Amino acid sequence: MTANPMVPSAALVASVKAATHDVYDTAEIQRQDAAHYMHPFTDHKALGERGVRVMVRGDGIYLWDSEGNKILDGMSGLWCVNVGYGRTSISDAVYRQMQTLSFYNSFFNTTNVPATRLAALLVEISPPQFNHVFFTGSGSEANDTNLRMVRRYWDLKGFPNRHTIISRYNAYHGSTVAGAALGGMAGMHEQGGMIPGIEHIGQPNYLENGSGMSADEFGIVAAGWLETKILEVGADKVAAFIGEPVQGAGGVIIPPATYWPEIERICDKYDVLLIADEVICGFGRLGTWFGSELMQIKPDLITFAKGVTSGYVPLGGVLVGDRVADVLIEEGGDFNHGFTYSGHPVACAAALENIRILIDERLVQQVAQDTGPYLKEKFEALMDHPLVGYADTCGFVAGLNLVRKKAEAVHDCEFFEPDHGVGMLCRGYMFANGIIMRAVGDRMIIAPPLVMTRAQIDEMIFKIRYCLEATLIDLQQRGWVV
Amino acid sequence: MTANPMVPSAALVASVKAATHDVYDTAEIQRQDAAHYMHPFTDHKALGERGVRVMVRGDGIYLWDSEGNKILDGMSGLWCVNVGYGRTSISDAVYRQMQTLSFYNSFFNTTNVPATRLAALLVEISPPQFNHVFFTGSGSEANDTNLRMVRRYWDLKGFPNRHTIISRYNAYHGSTVAGAALGGMAGMHEQGGMIPGIEHIGQPNYLENGSGMSADEFGIVAAGWLETKILEVGADKVAAFIGEPVQGAGGVIIPPATYWPEIERICDKYDVLLIADEVICGFGRLGTWFGSELMQIKPDLITFAKGVTSGYVPLGGVLVGDRVADVLIEEGGDFNHGFTYSGHPVACAAALENIRILIDERLVQQVAQDTGPYLKEKFEALMDHPLVGYADTCGFVAGLNLVRKKAEAVHDCEFFEPDHGVGMLCRGYMFANGIIMRAVGDRMIIAPPLVMTRAQIDEMIFKIRYCLEATLIDLQQRGWVV
Repeated sequence: MTANPMVPSAALVASVKAATHDVYDTAEIQRQDAAHYMHPFTDHKALGERGVRVMVRGDGIYLWDSEGNKILDGMSGLWCVNVGYGRTSISDAVYRQMQTLSFYNSFFNTTNVPATRLAALLVEISPPQFNHVFFTGSGSEANDTNLRMVRRYWDLKGFPNRHTIISRYNAYHGSTVAGAALGGMAGMHEQGGMIPGIEHIGQPNYLENGSGMSADEFGIVAAGWLETKILEVGADKVAAFIGEPVQGAGGVIIPPATYWPEIERICDKYDVLLIADEVICGFGRLGTWFGSELMQIKPDLITFAKGVTSGYVPLGGVLVGDRVADVLIEEGGDFNHGFTYSGHPVACAAALENIRILIDERLVQQVAQDTGPYLKEKFEALMDHPLVGYADTCGFVAGLNLVRKKAEAVHDCEFFEPDHGVGMLCRGYMFANGIIMRAVGDRMIIAPPLVMTRAQIDEMIFKIRYCLEATLIDLQQRGWVV
Repeated sequence: MTANPMVPSAALVASVKAATHDVYDTAEIQRQDAAHYMHPFTDHKALGERGVRVMVRGDGIYLWDSEGNKILDGMSGLWCVNVGYGRTSISDAVYRQMQTLSFYNSFFNTTNVPATRLAALLVEISPPQFNHVFFTGSGSEANDTNLRMVRRYWDLKGFPNRHTIISRYNAYHGSTVAGAALGGMAGMHEQGGMIPGIEHIGQPNYLENGSGMSADEFGIVAAGWLETKILEVGADKVAAFIGEPVQGAGGVIIPPATYWPEIERICDKYDVLLIADEVICGFGRLGTWFGSELMQIKPDLITFAKGVTSGYVPLGGVLVGDRVADVLIEEGGDFNHGFTYSGHPVACAAALENIRILIDERLVQQVAQDTGPYLKEKFEALMDHPLVGYADTCGFVAGLNLVRKKAEAVHDCEFFEPDHGVGMLCRGYMFANGIIMRAVGDRMIIAPPLVMTRAQIDEMIFKIRYCLEATLIDLQQRGWVV
């Protein structure tokens, strides 16, 4: 035997994996995938050549792929698996409901028990201005609902010109045509994702735009862009402002504390409706049931999805505040909108059990009082690493910026060339070392399952640190760091 | 005892129901529902005053409400429960998948086994020009995908002006903003559901517009409206034509046999892409896997949803034909579109088992060769009823027109005043007598589960006939019939 006796042979590793995991023919799945499955937000040709990774099992905060690799999921699937994978009680609730009533629609004066119960429960856990729920199948469909609802509201109020909705660059509000248009992703706008009547302002990105100001000063300035835009469009033409309490796909942009209250003040001043897209921030993500509570604002509409079922079954919807609901209900007659899967009994049964877990296991409080602050301490301490110019967290979302050269003042950091793709390089080391972290440019972001313990946070931070080090060595070899 | 001894007392009926069914507090659910649940396509205020009906159980083709009433579901939920309610094997497949991997996304070079397997299976059962699948969470999202895909296709081909999509009045293509705009429902367009770049032509409604022509002659005329519209818009501006093989929500409008081949000929002539929205017609509804096969056309894109899982778990998507897929894949790079729930492992597991049932129980062939023709014979025989001016079926969809006065030639029938709401009156008798049939104006429509047997067809026809008679007596009392 010539190999290092301390390192088990590849054959032995493979045989152990085969003995302890289901065996999958990865190559065959990859072939089928390349031949037939067009993935979301993907270059199909490049993926086919590279070969797809096959996720086969999940339990708690961990995933396993078809090769037997165990992976710590720092992204909760896609910001959604709040209670972790493999919850038997959700499977049980789904099974019971499916065996009882696998589907029925909510059109034609009909309901099902889980849909009505879930509407009542959501009202109970949401801020006091919310008494009504409109169900959809996803966050995208919920934002389409918002768009149709606010325009309908202003039509009924006698202001049919109030149809413009103001959003932010790099916002993410879904991938329907209207969702993409409400969002602020240029790459989506360019590919059939733009419609008239939607305007965008800058995002409250302190690192990018707050030079020379304190964070709180910058929050007021960034909110002021809304007022400028309202005046530019004409206040009598603006229906609503939409924003994520913390921007997610845009790079976990945590706004200064002054930002949202000022946004609300401006909306109030011009009688503009306020929509909080809480598809990511809802259901405990920020240590409050809804992110607007942490930001201390009272939106008129809340978009929800993802965390409502922890992703176990597709579900989305809109919490409709009294201001809008009263007009639609009292003056609106038929609202000609809705989906086959609106109020799906199986999805609603999954949501009921998911919310019961969040309540019974006190997961929202745990993030607020225990693991959230602990994550903040450990994650922000990564700023001692030479690559990390800035790091911040809010509840259970967090991001750090990879920089070429650090500086005392965050705005003096030197950044990498965008086309070096340093974030993607770092993400590759993360994936290869069993941790999922997402890259938005050179900002590395996480949104772990809310069940993550202190010990698991330690494990995650250890892995992140290890991969930052691997990235640094790589960058040194390329000569890209100072 | 003063009451008729042949009629059991209400108290006895209630006690039997309570002994044989789960007991629900209907009044309490109705109160919660009125207070909190905004239903799709509903006047919330009116529904709250009336009190919602609560569906609690489904088995095969039957439903039970919270009062213990058994109901024959002539609409398959909402055109979707193709294999019937209460299929244990689907619940089992869902449970197994949920316990194994309850969620994972298909972004970032990752897949899950059910998503890839389902893509491969869909390719196998679909017409030969389809080799790729894009998953969404619903039919609405799938039509948004179509819109973004065809515009992207023409951009890549170097024709960025080819962005207009032609659809039909009373078409139904979903309830997102783009879906509502692609559809042809005026009530939806008026409520925030319209965007530029979409045009509409008349529907191939022989009864309404085919006077003085044979059905086949009318089919050519109705298809000709597409050519007129293409020339009006400018052929160099038209991206695609979209249509349901048989229009569903528009009233089960079964086109003459000449219609679709002529539509295809016109699309070919002007190089216009053809999109078949098969959300209703797919998965055996017309006695073929896809309705386009029955209509003998080769669409470039097929929208699917509903029947793909029999509605057990929300799922939709697009079958992407080679003409479009080749360009997107070879020349497109990243396609910046997709959904959190795209390729949801649990939804895909439900679809795999649902399609296995359709195959193993030969349900598509059964509709084509046995129960479909039997339904046609029995349903069209309803034309012997004095209220039924016209009745037609296609596979397992069917519709009949209620008329004030019948005539030998169908175009000579006298119709009711639209504001008399005769269809809704008839629907009320159906609901009250334990059968679900839908009214579109005065056209009564059905789309039963594909598992419906000959004996159950007899039962359904018997109930329909009984309710037609009840409607007739009512109309006679009102003096609305001749």
